[in-house]
This record gives sequence, structure tokens and C-alpha cells, in this order.
Amino acid sequence: MITSNGNSRIRNIIQLNNSSKARHEQKVFTAEGIKMFMEAPCLRIREVFVSEELESKITDVIQGRAGHVDKDGSKDMESMIKLSDKLSKIQYETVSSNVFKHMADTVTPQGIITVIEAEKRDTAKILELHDGGDLHILILEGIQDPGNLGTMLRTAEGAGYDFILADRNTADVYNPKVIRSTMGSIFRVPVIYSSNLLKDIEGLKNAGIRIYAAHLKGEKTYDEAEYPGRMAVMIGNEGRGLSDDITNMADECIRIPMKGQVESLNAAVAAALLMFGSSRA
Amino acid sequence: MITSNGNSRIRNIIQLNNSSKARHEQKVFTAEGIKMFMEAPCLRIREVFVSEELESKITDVIQGRAGHVDKDGSKDMESMIKLSDKLSKIQYETVSSNVFKHMADTVTPQGIITVIEAEKRDTAKILELHDGGDLHILILEGIQDPGNLGTMLRTAEGAGYDFILADRNTADVYNPKVIRSTMGSIFRVPVIYSSNLLKDIEGLKNAGIRIYAAHLKGEKTYDEAEYPGRMAVMIGNEGRGLSDDITNMADECIRIPMKGQVESLNAAVAAALLMFGSSRA
Repeated sequence: MITSNGNSRIRNIIQLNNSSKARHEQKVFTAEGIKMFMEAPCLRIREVFVSEELESKITDVIQGRAGHVDKDGSKDMESMIKLSDKLSKIQYETVSSNVFKHMADTVTPQGIITVIEAEKRDTAKILELHDGGDLHILILEGIQDPGNLGTMLRTAEGAGYDFILADRNTADVYNPKVIRSTMGSIFRVPVIYSSNLLKDIEGLKNAGIRIYAAHLKGEKTYDEAEYPGRMAVMIGNEGRGLSDDITNMADECIRIPMKGQVESLNAAVAAALLMFGSSRA
Repeated sequence: MITSNGNSRIRNIIQLNNSSKARHEQKVFTAEGIKMFMEAPCLRIREVFVSEELESKITDVIQGRAGHVDKDGSKDMESMIKLSDKLSKIQYETVSSNVFKHMADTVTPQGIITVIEAEKRDTAKILELHDGGDLHILILEGIQDPGNLGTMLRTAEGAGYDFILADRNTADVYNPKVIRSTMGSIFRVPVIYSSNLLKDIEGLKNAGIRIYAAHLKGEKTYDEAEYPGRMAVMIGNEGRGLSDDITNMADECIRIPMKGQVESLNAAVAAALLMFGSSRA
């Protein structure tokens, strides 16, 4: 059991929680909570830290020694059995309550932190995996608000989008707050950061993917446009929208028809309308 | 000029910034910035506070004494003339720089705070004003996140919705952060807080308004449903959704078709899809 805050692995977790640079260099991110641990693919789990409290709770619940059985008793039992099952298949580290509080990023931690490998694939690899089939892609340029990014990821999964391609000016999806807000979508909708977005969009176009830009100057509205099976929608920065260079890569500009004196919608709302509007067919 | 933080009007502004109860009791709210002052209807303005810095900037720009003319020089001039025009028609109070910093809620204040009357009308009054014509209403139950509420208000205006009816468990739209995030939509889309949401929905139904509930159990999806000219969409709390009592008031439950393992969307995203989906016709 780790009992010291000075332990190098504990110090590294805190660094990973707080520093985008550290996450980028080590190519991993941290995820708190039982749901995130359960949804993380085993092959991508690098380290797991469990608080001594959660460890004894698991034992107590499974052995029927829990002090009280509340309304959710049976549900709790079921989830503890599943948790125990998955933990038994991997190596994990127990940490003392105080150390766990120290390393946790949430106010009321559930007692489990997982270190997970970041997305390794690039656009070419994902195109290869989809091998000419239908593909829906969300392209982001300079999205600043981590809350917007988390919402977009969750919406992308709901709309059946396959992956997100973002430039390096977009917020870090591996920020612990974003990770929690995605509710596990991060494991099912890959986010690929591009160091050369123009070049990557060019690659998508060469693979027969039609590119749509959300733009105030679009001729057709998003619900008038026709969408093929292989397509991408591009959304720009909250204040400035898409840059001219990126907009020029589009096969078609589409707009959201707006009433009143509204000049633009929240970026996550715009992305949702376009993603659901284009995947409806 | 007010030069003391202890001034009772200054202390009241700080109270209005921080306390939902004070805003509710005085039936006013504060709004910072030039855009908000310019968009506020004159009849609803109760007090205006201008920093000595902004006051001399207005004079300087108008008299052509501004130290430098930047790229936005002419735009700046135009906006200062409009600001000066509107200020000349009402009574305002100048405050010293230090006092202004003390009373401002933003980190880089623009030098103007307006105290504005809250929405006074109730549902019956608004129904009367619309007098049997088309009407689109967003009904909210227990929306907790002020950011979601602000986004919904802005989206409502963009989708051409007429007003928002919210229960008392919904976040306070007059919170300074929400007010700023609405970008002026607060002046064009009234938000009416209901102390008896069930009764108010009953009133809407009696006025021939068809009520739709966003619900996972909806038979039709939001893009399959047909919407009449007089209609309302109900959105529930971020975690729990709509209560059974409120859901039962609906003429029809509609759902958003979701792929992947997504159980629900962000409340502001769901509201956007339903509002744009229902006003498209």
C-alpha cells in the first residue's frame, strides 16, 4: 500500500491531472471513478490506483458484510462484483485514504483512478480501418472551452459520428474535467490531434470524404444540404469561427438559419445541429 | 461622483450581483458592459453607473482627442457616439475607478453597469399579447447549470422561440454570468418563472398550445413528429430529466434517436435539437 504523498507514482498522477504537457509527453491520461475504469478498454490501461476504503467496501459488499443495505443494495452489489472481476484481471495499487484524497481531482472521489493510454492512431490509420465504408467525422479548429469539447464528444457518439479530428489549438480532451464530462464517450469516439490540419483535411478529401464547413455565408442551410455516407463537418473557434484557410478546404459551406438578433450559436449547439442534421438520413 | 465603496447604492449593486434572493425581492438585475446597456430597453432601465474612465474616454473619442486611432478607430467612434446618445437620454451616476472595480463582476470591466427591471409579465399576459397567433415556448424543469440556461436562451432566440417558462428549481437567469452569456437574448426572449408549473402548463393547454415532452420513452423521434404553430417543448433536469407529473401533462412524448452507448445528451444540446427541429417548418 502506498502511504506517502511523496511517492513518485503519486506525484506523477498529480502532474498528469494538472499538466497537458505531461499528458502529451507520456501519451497517457488519468480518469477518475468506477464508470470510467469499467469502460476503459483493458489493453489501454497502464496503471490503476484504488483507495483502501474502496478496496474494503468491495470485500464487504461481496461478502455480505456491508453495514446497511440501502435501496440500491442489489445494484451496488452487482456493480461491486463487476468491479472486483475487472480488478482481478489487472494489476492495481492500493493507496491510503489520505494519499488518495491528495491525488484525486474530484471533491468526492469514488476511490479509483485509472491511467489510460491516449489515442495512438492517426487519420490514415482510422481511414484504413473503415476501409471505404461510411464515415462521419467532426473537424474542430481552435475550440477553447473544455466544456464545449466534452459536450461535442458525447453528442458525436449520440449522432453516430466516428471520430473527431482537432487542431492543436483546440482544448485538451484529456483534461480530467473534460474526461469526466464525456461519460465514457472518449473510449468510443477517438479524438485525433493534428499538427497539420490542412494536410489532414487534404488526406480526407483524397479518401473521398466530402467536407462541409459551418459558415454564416453558407448558401444552403444544414437541413437543406444533402450528405453522402462519407462526410465531415468543420466547426471553428467560439469567437472567430473557422479560419479562411480551413474554410477554403470545404466542398460546401452550410449555415444554420437564425432568427432574432442572434449572430452565432454556442459552438457545441452548432456542432450538435449539424451532426444530428447530417446523420439523420 | 461616487468615490466610496461604502455608498449604499454601490453596496446594493454588489448584493444584486451576488444574491438571487436580493434580485428576486427587488425585481431587478444587473448587467455589465456596453453591449448590454445598449440593448436594454430604456423603459426597463432603473439605474446606470459609469466609471470615470469610460466617461472621459467617451468625451475624448467624440472630441477627437483619443491618444491613438487603432484599426477599429472609426468603429470605436461610432459606438462611443451611440453610447453617449443613449446616456444623454437617461440619468446616470459617475463612479471613481476604484469604486467601479469594486462593484464590477468581471475581471476586465468595460466601465458601465446597468440595473434593469426583471420580466414582469406572466404566462397569461404573454398569451394575451400573442392573441391566438403562432407561439413557440420552451418549458424548463429544474435546469441546474447556469451555463446551460444561458445557452438555451440564446438558442431559443435563434430558433425563433417566443418565451421560456421555467419552474423555481431552474437556475436564476438573472445571475450576472448567465446574463453575459445570453448576449442580449434576455431582452428579446422573456424568461418567466412559475411558482406552479403544472397550473401554468394547464393554462397553455387551455389556450390551444400543444405540449411536447423530451423523453427517452417517446414513440416518435423529434424529426418525425409534426408540430402545429402553437406549441411548447419541455426539457427536464440534467440528471433526472422531467418529473412524472410534468411528463404526464404532455400531449406527446418525443425522443432524440441516439447511437452508441449514449444514454442522454447535454440538456442544452437536447433543447437545441428540439427547438430547431420544431421551428423548421
